[in-house]
Amino acid sequence: MEYHQLNVNLVADFIRGLSEMQSLFSSFDTLEIVEVGDGNLNFVYIITNELSRDETVVLKQAVPFLRIAGEGWPLSRDRMKNEVMALKFHESLCPSNVPKIYYSSDEMSLVIMENLKNHQIIRGEIIKGKVFPSLAEHVSSFIATTLFHSSDLYLGFDEKKRNVAKTINIELCKITEDFVFTHPYEDNETNEYNPELSLDAIAHIQRDPELRNAVGEMKYAFMTKAEALLHGDLHIGSIMANEEETFIIDPEFSFYGPMGFDLGAMIGNLFLAYFSHDYRQRKMGNDPEKYRSWLLQCAKDVWCGFEEKFLDLWLSHDEAQGTSFIGRDLDGKSAETFRKAYMKRVFEDMIGFAACKMMRRIVGLAKVADIADIEDAAERARAEENALRMGSVMVLQRSNYSNFDELMDLAKSISPLGGCK
Amino acid sequence: MEYHQLNVNLVADFIRGLSEMQSLFSSFDTLEIVEVGDGNLNFVYIITNELSRDETVVLKQAVPFLRIAGEGWPLSRDRMKNEVMALKFHESLCPSNVPKIYYSSDEMSLVIMENLKNHQIIRGEIIKGKVFPSLAEHVSSFIATTLFHSSDLYLGFDEKKRNVAKTINIELCKITEDFVFTHPYEDNETNEYNPELSLDAIAHIQRDPELRNAVGEMKYAFMTKAEALLHGDLHIGSIMANEEETFIIDPEFSFYGPMGFDLGAMIGNLFLAYFSHDYRQRKMGNDPEKYRSWLLQCAKDVWCGFEEKFLDLWLSHDEAQGTSFIGRDLDGKSAETFRKAYMKRVFEDMIGFAACKMMRRIVGLAKVADIADIEDAAERARAEENALRMGSVMVLQRSNYSNFDELMDLAKSISPLGGCK
Repeated sequence: MEYHQLNVNLVADFIRGLSEMQSLFSSFDTLEIVEVGDGNLNFVYIITNELSRDETVVLKQAVPFLRIAGEGWPLSRDRMKNEVMALKFHESLCPSNVPKIYYSSDEMSLVIMENLKNHQIIRGEIIKGKVFPSLAEHVSSFIATTLFHSSDLYLGFDEKKRNVAKTINIELCKITEDFVFTHPYEDNETNEYNPELSLDAIAHIQRDPELRNAVGEMKYAFMTKAEALLHGDLHIGSIMANEEETFIIDPEFSFYGPMGFDLGAMIGNLFLAYFSHDYRQRKMGNDPEKYRSWLLQCAKDVWCGFEEKFLDLWLSHDEAQGTSFIGRDLDGKSAETFRKAYMKRVFEDMIGFAACKMMRRIVGLAKVADIADIEDAAERARAEENALRMGSVMVLQRSNYSNFDELMDLAKSISPLGGCK
Repeated sequence: MEYHQLNVNLVADFIRGLSEMQSLFSSFDTLEIVEVGDGNLNFVYIITNELSRDETVVLKQAVPFLRIAGEGWPLSRDRMKNEVMALKFHESLCPSNVPKIYYSSDEMSLVIMENLKNHQIIRGEIIKGKVFPSLAEHVSSFIATTLFHSSDLYLGFDEKKRNVAKTINIELCKITEDFVFTHPYEDNETNEYNPELSLDAIAHIQRDPELRNAVGEMKYAFMTKAEALLHGDLHIGSIMANEEETFIIDPEFSFYGPMGFDLGAMIGNLFLAYFSHDYRQRKMGNDPEKYRSWLLQCAKDVWCGFEEKFLDLWLSHDEAQGTSFIGRDLDGKSAETFRKAYMKRVFEDMIGFAACKMMRRIVGLAKVADIADIEDAAERARAEENALRMGSVMVLQRSNYSNFDELMDLAKSISPLGGCK
């Protein structure tokens, strides 16, 4: 079918024509179609049989422009191919953490998938102070499993190289290169600053040569380090969850990049939430310590869970193969030495990427509601300055941390757990 | 034309049928065809008009197996696509350092190019002790120009990513992964050891966990660090030269990899020659100091020439663009800080790759004639042990060197310039 852009009036007929939908809907005459896309890129429709509301799917379609900017900003629909490739890869490895895929079409640049109607995007919930007891466990499993199984540590010499070629994602990588690694640091005209934010704090991240160099190093790593098939945008707006289940959605930024990038996105977002909840918990009348402790512990559990599971997968694989990435281990200690040094590098990258993700959310165009929606500009500026300070230290010192507790200590030293009394 | 393997009897008719050859040959009835392929992979024919010997070309054809191993070792003919892509890229940037390309065919997996009949493969000449006064100047220009212009520092965000996808080189990268980074260090059954080589020296590079880790890190960088379109096999057997001119040939291993790899191949080979000429110069009745000083100076000039030219290209490009890889330089020092740190990383990679290239030539399957052809096994073992020692220190200490003189000092400390008296 030749590409055409759907709308609420066309979706029902489109769905009706698909053999894959026949077993999901008992009738196509009573479909309720609601467009809910709140992202910047695509159109998202929730399709529900009004007479049997369990019969429901989500349809996501890419349009050949950046939705938030309009038709004047062309953007190839190819991104939907990357999203579908990633969703299928994730589904094959972590079926309980990815919505079921019912149908996809490269021509129409769309995917139809499970409607996660008992789950919420966690950013909004975290803003409200909700605890997700399984989040770190599920997210760390997802990251460890998807990164390991797409890496050179697991795949044969041929498949990984073919995957790299197949998954290049030119335009969405460019968005990250610009909005995460470049614009925020060059005082770009797209940047947006809280008027209460100290000029010194901005100047530091835009004019300190060592900081600019460190951010440049992370940008270069993002562009050249083809380690694993990333989700590519794994912040807390790409996760839907309830207390028992966790789903990772929206992998349209997926491409082969550095492992630390997905980890850094997740962990950097939890640190941002940490800084926002100094004010937010006080505003709610709570002692900030409890929820903020959970946020830091969650960040730690994501890293530590990832590290443990990734190493487990790696060890099991090497044992099954009878050899290792570096070749046969003649002295019995070399493979372990390599694994240890390897994890140290991923840790360092995670810190650097988390830092860039944090800083760009303060001075760049795209904000996070956790902080941006704090109405009191002075309180917002305090959270922002704390986030910038943490990001700056992290990216500059990223090779000097030896465990996650040191990062938690850094966060607590910048903004004490119990908040500013 | 469907693929078929040429031979000395078929080449004349093939050439005769090509329009591109009509202006090069005044007659096709008096062609002399000689097969001269001494590499491991391909067939190479020199085609000359006997009546007018200036009418001459080289035809190189890939066969669907590893020539040195025979039809039992299949090897995709795709490698010729990589070679032709690289040759054309090199010709567009460095026409005076690449043979002219007259014709190429993906279907026939062949290329027809200039016959460099006034030039010699320099490995054989360096073994004889010949000085090439322009070598470092030409090779450093070639490396700086080709690496810079294929990198993210120069290319737009889209072209580089497309190039990475287009130039994956699965099977030849696998050969490097195995024979440069794995087999030599795991006591593989393909390894070949000089019986006079000390068992301790071998054990060190196969059993020291830190060394195995360091080599593993270089292997991982080779497989994941897509910085620039490499030649991929830039040792002194891939260079034809005379005193005035230098040609870089045989880029079939070309792919997007780490910049330090091409530099390390060249410089590591010069160090191997340095160790071989302790004995070779004495054998010729010369004081070893003179020629060995030239070899070290040549290695230094390759690095320093590369660094200077690469930085020149980068600076000019940034000035023309009015911005830089890291974004606008608001404090006037950030771009320079980034460039300096960048070159330090390339230097470090160069050292690590040179080291791996040196060590594998001693204990792996593929030797270099510089050392392997020393008939006296004890003298050969001395050169081998020196090369292993140098390689081991280099790969382990690669981040601790701040300039090339320190590497020259290391070489001289392992084997004094004047040789062992």
